[in-house]
Amino acid sequence: MVLETIASPQDLKKLSREDLQRVVDEARQALLEKTSQHGGHNGPNFGMVEMTVAMHYVFNSPVDKFIFDVSHQSYVHKMLTGRAQAFLDPDHYDDVSGYTNPKESEHDLFTIGHTSTSLSLASGVAKARDLKDEVYNVVAVIGDGSLSGGMAYEGLNQITTEGTNTIVIVNDNDQSIAANPSGMAYEGLNQITTEGTNTIVIVNDNDQSIAANPTGGIYTALRDLRENNGKAANNFFEAFGFDYHYLEAGNDLTQLIALFEEVKDANHPVLLHIHTQKGHGVSFMEENREAFHAGGPYIPETGEYLRHTTSGETYNSITTEFVLDKIEKDPTVVAVNAGTPMFMLNQEQRQKAGKQFVDVGIAEEEAATMAAGLAKNGAKPIWYVAAPFMQRTYDQWSHDIALNNLPVTTLVYSASVSAMNDESHLGFFDIPFLAHIPNVVYLAPTSKEEHLAMLDWAVEQNEHPVAIRIPVGPLRETGVADTTDYSILNKNQVTQKGSKVAIFGLGNFYGLAEEVAKELADKHGITATLVNPKFITGLDEELLDSLESEHQVAVTLEDGVLEGGYGQMIASYLGNTDIKIQNYGVEKAFHDRYNPKELLAENGVTVDNIVKNILASLA
Amino acid sequence: MVLETIASPQDLKKLSREDLQRVVDEARQALLEKTSQHGGHNGPNFGMVEMTVAMHYVFNSPVDKFIFDVSHQSYVHKMLTGRAQAFLDPDHYDDVSGYTNPKESEHDLFTIGHTSTSLSLASGVAKARDLKDEVYNVVAVIGDGSLSGGMAYEGLNQITTEGTNTIVIVNDNDQSIAANPSGMAYEGLNQITTEGTNTIVIVNDNDQSIAANPTGGIYTALRDLRENNGKAANNFFEAFGFDYHYLEAGNDLTQLIALFEEVKDANHPVLLHIHTQKGHGVSFMEENREAFHAGGPYIPETGEYLRHTTSGETYNSITTEFVLDKIEKDPTVVAVNAGTPMFMLNQEQRQKAGKQFVDVGIAEEEAATMAAGLAKNGAKPIWYVAAPFMQRTYDQWSHDIALNNLPVTTLVYSASVSAMNDESHLGFFDIPFLAHIPNVVYLAPTSKEEHLAMLDWAVEQNEHPVAIRIPVGPLRETGVADTTDYSILNKNQVTQKGSKVAIFGLGNFYGLAEEVAKELADKHGITATLVNPKFITGLDEELLDSLESEHQVAVTLEDGVLEGGYGQMIASYLGNTDIKIQNYGVEKAFHDRYNPKELLAENGVTVDNIVKNILASLA
Repeated sequence: MVLETIASPQDLKKLSREDLQRVVDEARQALLEKTSQHGGHNGPNFGMVEMTVAMHYVFNSPVDKFIFDVSHQSYVHKMLTGRAQAFLDPDHYDDVSGYTNPKESEHDLFTIGHTSTSLSLASGVAKARDLKDEVYNVVAVIGDGSLSGGMAYEGLNQITTEGTNTIVIVNDNDQSIAANPSGMAYEGLNQITTEGTNTIVIVNDNDQSIAANPTGGIYTALRDLRENNGKAANNFFEAFGFDYHYLEAGNDLTQLIALFEEVKDANHPVLLHIHTQKGHGVSFMEENREAFHAGGPYIPETGEYLRHTTSGETYNSITTEFVLDKIEKDPTVVAVNAGTPMFMLNQEQRQKAGKQFVDVGIAEEEAATMAAGLAKNGAKPIWYVAAPFMQRTYDQWSHDIALNNLPVTTLVYSASVSAMNDESHLGFFDIPFLAHIPNVVYLAPTSKEEHLAMLDWAVEQNEHPVAIRIPVGPLRETGVADTTDYSILNKNQVTQKGSKVAIFGLGNFYGLAEEVAKELADKHGITATLVNPKFITGLDEELLDSLESEHQVAVTLEDGVLEGGYGQMIASYLGNTDIKIQNYGVEKAFHDRYNPKELLAENGVTVDNIVKNILASLA
Repeated sequence: MVLETIASPQDLKKLSREDLQRVVDEARQALLEKTSQHGGHNGPNFGMVEMTVAMHYVFNSPVDKFIFDVSHQSYVHKMLTGRAQAFLDPDHYDDVSGYTNPKESEHDLFTIGHTSTSLSLASGVAKARDLKDEVYNVVAVIGDGSLSGGMAYEGLNQITTEGTNTIVIVNDNDQSIAANPSGMAYEGLNQITTEGTNTIVIVNDNDQSIAANPTGGIYTALRDLRENNGKAANNFFEAFGFDYHYLEAGNDLTQLIALFEEVKDANHPVLLHIHTQKGHGVSFMEENREAFHAGGPYIPETGEYLRHTTSGETYNSITTEFVLDKIEKDPTVVAVNAGTPMFMLNQEQRQKAGKQFVDVGIAEEEAATMAAGLAKNGAKPIWYVAAPFMQRTYDQWSHDIALNNLPVTTLVYSASVSAMNDESHLGFFDIPFLAHIPNVVYLAPTSKEEHLAMLDWAVEQNEHPVAIRIPVGPLRETGVADTTDYSILNKNQVTQKGSKVAIFGLGNFYGLAEEVAKELADKHGITATLVNPKFITGLDEELLDSLESEHQVAVTLEDGVLEGGYGQMIASYLGNTDIKIQNYGVEKAFHDRYNPKELLAENGVTVDNIVKNILASLA
């Protein structure tokens, strides 16, 4: 096996063209074996094998700087930079993350998991090079899905403004105008992401994401270029000042090498528009590119996925049903999404929703502010967004939605310590992010009934921007319809009246609060007051004021980062009273590929520890 | 006077062309009188007079929907929609804000003060129209400065994807390639913004901002179109699918009316590229467009500004000196800015800085992430950003700078209740925004000496992303050089050792803490412990742990929003002790055109109230 002998790109450069092609074949076989057993990003990596081999053959990493956008297509890059074992030996599959990672290799400049950042990073790397009077190539690889993000456009502007060497590779696998991925692979993927194992996972599906955008804007521009072999009437990239090159045969090693050799060491910005085939070399991936963007494990011979859809209701499934029902009954309801539609509605459901479904591509700012415009003009937008990617929209929340106080309904998913666990995809900073923006009402349901009641109130009211933190974890049913009037803001529910101790169990952690209360009752004879806060963005001052007479300790439990979170607001509010406060959550840090239970335990979030601390305070 | 008779756009439509031209002249005269007395955005509005009159003559607002990007060029729109008095009668100048405002008029859809949002808003407004099967025009007016923001690109994509009526007007006053504004007008403007009066102010200088980008990207594309009368070899807008029209004579009422009539009621996306002249009709503004973007008051006959530069050192001036000195001594130091260079370095200073100064245009995400790239590749980026506009970069902070733990130095200005006071430009949400992102070190200096020591440490260290909250208010000098080793994170300075009461005076509010301590000492015989925390992002646990033995009350004072802020972290940390906590700051809300002292008093932030509450807790 040639691949095993490649300890660094230097080894690759010594190979004959024949052996290079063997590396391509072996890398593709290794991808097939690993992803079929382990899951991961399939299509993007299979389509990039030849390009990655050609890049390392022609350029000189780490002197030349490679930056992969989103970086989930960097598996072959990892194989060629000293990490082949992590793709060849199942015992070492988890040695590497699913993204570039400077802790793994000097060939990885950045940890990257969100889209559209590579060009801005490249503009900085190139500028530093120029300031230091150094000479080498800066190469950014960006997929068309990532090109839909506005930040990529800002990067294009800056690169052409600087005018020095930067080589932008647009990996155009024309999936940007593809039909949508089938639900199954994604549901399998979703499963993985919530298991908290070391499995390589990502849900930021760049290449597939722009399903609802068959035409328009950058997709029109790219398609025209593809269809005219790079010679469209209007070339967007040339208008911006790039030295543009088109390569139709993006999986042809020889042509790739020739192209890279032609532009290497250019003294100006170059844009290579390379047409690749997603899933190239694996027949079932070529034929069903949508399903094989990501997912797994699967049977390598047939491509049959081994994981199947979870049966029974989940918070996701009831949310989807609710949205579809609203859409059917009200033509002004519109589901808005930025590049991850499969988590909201499957392909069939989206077709049914028709013009009441919008996928803006990976462009979260557009999704948020478009929703503001929709609400202003009398529609009822429901925006689905994953907590890690909501981070891209602070000012859209603040200046567009909240300042204008528009009734946008936002459904925040994967907001939990127990959701995605790669350091680049953490979803538990949403409370400090969102909860302190004025006018926003952020809700934390604890059951199916509450979730549905909150959803309905959010969509039908006209007074507030409302976000709902979709619960993560098994569906909890109370069996009693929730008839709460949520227009009475910040009214908490006291589910058990007690004394001495008040426990605020926010959203996902309400169950934990119940366990703590049960332990206090069963083992220590203490009937605690148990509170389901429901509202994250404001406090029930009447309730808090009433605690002082009969309570000595207030405990807050939240499934997220402690600093700037919910509990600290309570600590502040009760700070000047005799009540002692204990806030539980996770300390701020970029926790990486952790086990959620272990992380919570490290942060003292266990029934035993909480009970112990309560007892100590009461003593 | 014709203008006085215009109560709504309906009145305008009845006028003869001759009277329409009189409205143009009268509107321009009113602008001259108001802005010369009152200050405001001059150039952008003078250049838009004809266009605005033509828009209201041809289209049918409020049925047709107008959305002005940044909206500081909406003065004439306000005159024509029932608010002429606010421009004609000095007693009513403050009746209107400097931006569109739905509270003022049904012709204003949104409150807008940040750039590049208009196209996303328009895409939502148009989509809602389509869902409701309504028929009218959606018209967005965007300046070229605002086109540099990635969100505008996302909006262009979505508008062309939807493919229905939206008319995008690109107001191209070719200031995008202008030299930079002279410092004076801007320093005058800066003065206004910090006075906290009702003066119409903004610092988000869209049209002038891209001074350092004479070529590249969208500016190359626009210039090519201008120079070829709309017929460049590559038309960016046509590549995206727009029906593109160019008008060279953007201040010719007749041609504007004809163009608008031609495209009105189009069933597809239209882009009108209109070349206007900034400051049109006022000789000194035409001649010195840079200085007359915004500012005032000035002498209307000559254009001489009445305000002059503040003499003596300010926090801004010492920061500028520091940056220039670093640039001179170290070729890898680079000052980075997104569209507001005048607050960092004046024109002469920028020329001196040469390639060590970068203005990316109004593209804050690019500035932040480019800085990450610079730091990674061994340069020393210093990024200047106003607190309200830093809000556009949460994910760039989190995912690009902080996750990669890169030594970017960020200088945050206007972060204070006493800085900009329009609801669209508030700068006091920065602590909840920034302080809970892992790895970030956010510093709050309280004196010249501390500020300079922190600056030097930030730029020269290589371990952390560091942001410095530039103090707002008069320069405070201790006279003693600060020799603190800031690499020892979160170490607070105890400036007075006392008992019973500990007062944490963060940054701008350290002076207030001193006053409270003095009052306690002078009038009540209490020697409080006085703390200068210096670090916003972490707590001095050793100090906090030591308080319990001799202190009953801890007071935190911060110049910002209370929720999610600094003080709440202390409340949480000390929550389980016997120490009572009092957190002072401003309640979260979009406070609008307020008086800072009054706002602080309403929130209990006065020496008297704080002392009273401390005494009550000690009783």
